[in-house]
Amino acid sequence: MELLNALNWRYATKKMNGQPVPQDKVDKILEAASLAPTSSGLQPFEIIVITNPDLREKIKAIANGQSQITDGSHLLVFAAWDHYTEDRINQIFKHMNTERGVPDSATDGYRTMLINAYTNQTAQENFEHAARQAYISFGTAIAAAAELKVDATPMEGFDNTALDTLLGLSEKGLRSVTLLPLGYRDESNDWLIKLKKVRRPKEEFITEIA
Amino acid sequence: MELLNALNWRYATKKMNGQPVPQDKVDKILEAASLAPTSSGLQPFEIIVITNPDLREKIKAIANGQSQITDGSHLLVFAAWDHYTEDRINQIFKHMNTERGVPDSATDGYRTMLINAYTNQTAQENFEHAARQAYISFGTAIAAAAELKVDATPMEGFDNTALDTLLGLSEKGLRSVTLLPLGYRDESNDWLIKLKKVRRPKEEFITEIA
Repeated sequence: MELLNALNWRYATKKMNGQPVPQDKVDKILEAASLAPTSSGLQPFEIIVITNPDLREKIKAIANGQSQITDGSHLLVFAAWDHYTEDRINQIFKHMNTERGVPDSATDGYRTMLINAYTNQTAQENFEHAARQAYISFGTAIAAAAELKVDATPMEGFDNTALDTLLGLSEKGLRSVTLLPLGYRDESNDWLIKLKKVRRPKEEFITEIA
Repeated sequence: MELLNALNWRYATKKMNGQPVPQDKVDKILEAASLAPTSSGLQPFEIIVITNPDLREKIKAIANGQSQITDGSHLLVFAAWDHYTEDRINQIFKHMNTERGVPDSATDGYRTMLINAYTNQTAQENFEHAARQAYISFGTAIAAAAELKVDATPMEGFDNTALDTLLGLSEKGLRSVTLLPLGYRDESNDWLIKLKKVRRPKEEFITEIA
């Protein structure tokens, strides 16, 4: 099973070797990220793909100096909607209905229910929900990279507010949640590659109720 | 690329046909869920696998009557830690260090930093962070199911508090976040199977900064 092989091959690469990832592989990783399921199909987040070296240097400086950000070739930033709005939801449904060739009226009931539910929550509750959807896509991108033998390092350790300012995300109604540098492992200089992949014992992690 | 094929094949199955999923496929899906990356490798969640028909009937009743819960053969419940504790973190590190054959002292600095960071947050902040990690695993399980041609329906629409009570999750320090029934699509009775899979236009969803 290719996915299990890929998940066993990957690890949170600590040192990358500077070799660039071909664009067709990056495109496949982004396609997988886009195909990941989200609640009601809203995809309430965006992905910013940064190759610019100067900008990645600036991001490294607000991300605890993590070298993969500049030693990789592409940096993916996952940024969730800061809140759900009627406009945002309407736009998604309009596009979906057009693509499916069904009238907007077909989804009016469901769409209105969603708008009411989300606009009755706080902006923070909305954002937390959107962030969770982004994490589904984030995980799917990591799996896709691994299947293509591209290394990727999932990162939460950065100054989110500073990054939002640097990339102008707040003006777009977005808040950064994760980083994913893409590149290739530097086998001889990565301390983590030598260590066994460890997961919680199955009997602790999984409970069966028959 | 097998993952892209799988993601294109899958959809949020609305009607399942009752055919059971073989246990070896369920085991592979759970293995993929366990291999998904999480922040500092803490895996701050558990998965409950329910085959019991009576219990699944009760869950359906607090999940808007969604029929996949009983028409599938296995129901996965993803439940996140309600908060991070020193004990929980210590236990993970102890296991990891034993498996890797390194002394606990090797990770003392990092472990202490994590404990300080998490215990300085509110329980709700801890839970939201744990929930996001669970969503990475949730997405990975969905992809694994699809690769095995097993249908799965990601679900958030249920009464979390009622489910926590029903499964005794609160006593275990867990809070349910998502459901994932596993089964097989009922092609002739599923309204969604006929509709095109639609995603946001690439130019809206992805921004490149070169």
